[in-house]
Amino acid sequence: MDFNGKKMDERLKKQLEFSLEIDKEKNVFRQTHLSGLGRNENDAEHAWHMAVMAYVLREYSNDEVDIARVMLMCLIHDIVEIDAGDTYAYDEEGLKTQKEREERAKERIFSLLPEDQKRDLATLFEEFEDGETPESKFAHAMDNLQPLILNHSNGGSDWREHGVTSDKVYGRQKMTAAGSQRLYDEVTGPIIRENIEKGNIELSGADYDPDECI
Amino acid sequence: MDFNGKKMDERLKKQLEFSLEIDKEKNVFRQTHLSGLGRNENDAEHAWHMAVMAYVLREYSNDEVDIARVMLMCLIHDIVEIDAGDTYAYDEEGLKTQKEREERAKERIFSLLPEDQKRDLATLFEEFEDGETPESKFAHAMDNLQPLILNHSNGGSDWREHGVTSDKVYGRQKMTAAGSQRLYDEVTGPIIRENIEKGNIELSGADYDPDECI
Repeated sequence: MDFNGKKMDERLKKQLEFSLEIDKEKNVFRQTHLSGLGRNENDAEHAWHMAVMAYVLREYSNDEVDIARVMLMCLIHDIVEIDAGDTYAYDEEGLKTQKEREERAKERIFSLLPEDQKRDLATLFEEFEDGETPESKFAHAMDNLQPLILNHSNGGSDWREHGVTSDKVYGRQKMTAAGSQRLYDEVTGPIIRENIEKGNIELSGADYDPDECI
Repeated sequence: MDFNGKKMDERLKKQLEFSLEIDKEKNVFRQTHLSGLGRNENDAEHAWHMAVMAYVLREYSNDEVDIARVMLMCLIHDIVEIDAGDTYAYDEEGLKTQKEREERAKERIFSLLPEDQKRDLATLFEEFEDGETPESKFAHAMDNLQPLILNHSNGGSDWREHGVTSDKVYGRQKMTAAGSQRLYDEVTGPIIRENIEKGNIELSGADYDPDECI
């Protein structure tokens, strides 16, 4: 894109180039389907949904959080997928190379920004990936809860389509409990149990206790 | 959606119902096309894009802003369009009824939330609509700048398709200057002039002075 570069300040030009580049996140599609048995969801609208949910549900975070930081983390956490693509949570082969693909993407895409903003957003992305701060734990809870409620509203069709087993779902959803025990106990756990009982999630091993939430 | 309501706290249930309802914003499509001459953009991904751009470009706001408030405003400003639909910025007939349609939508959709959160988000939406605070002015600047850079990257095709005239574009883009004179002067103004010169925006009346930015 030509931003009339000859007269434009270099810093502003870089910020606009980044702004245009991230438009591509709208073309990265996920396995989750929109409610009403709709089309596949893309990363940009997933990030938007997570950020709004984080704000509305912030009172349930295990620890007090800087909600602005959580929201921003939600908004930028999938930008790397412009290059690296979406890796389905239950795609074991894809998960093996995900880290390396996302590292390269982080370097390329955030480097479009001025150096200070590159550092700022790359650090925030790494904080999300590490999942150790209250903010990143709550952002991960939203990253799990958002597709869970869509999938449940669609009668568990995404789980059925991929033949997902209960150990995998429980494994992934532990991150929800790390961010919000209350949302895990009152929403995630009951939804998983209901979908196991209905046969949407395939029961695997001895990991299932209908009265237990984790 | 059934959230196992019989055991669920009423407040949490309402918050989840709102969270699921806003998924519908992903099905509200705009006139703007994604970069690379892509498909029409939807409201949810537009809101996401605006919020990230607000963060990256915040240093150019005319006045100091609470960036978390700006971002949240960007994220929720189009939720009313789930009921009211998208009104194209240059659709004069649609604009006449837009306010009334959006008022009804605001009441219905935000009422899904607990009362305190309904007030919180409805107030934030009204602040955006009024456009009088520094935060709402900067959010409006993003609401204008985001489709402008997409459209410019596509060779001005959205303007050509709708036969948009320069007085309309200048009229709308005044809101960009109210939020960020610098972005108006260095990005919006040059992009509009270039697209008038290329014939993508139809020149109308005597409102065009190639050396003037507002």
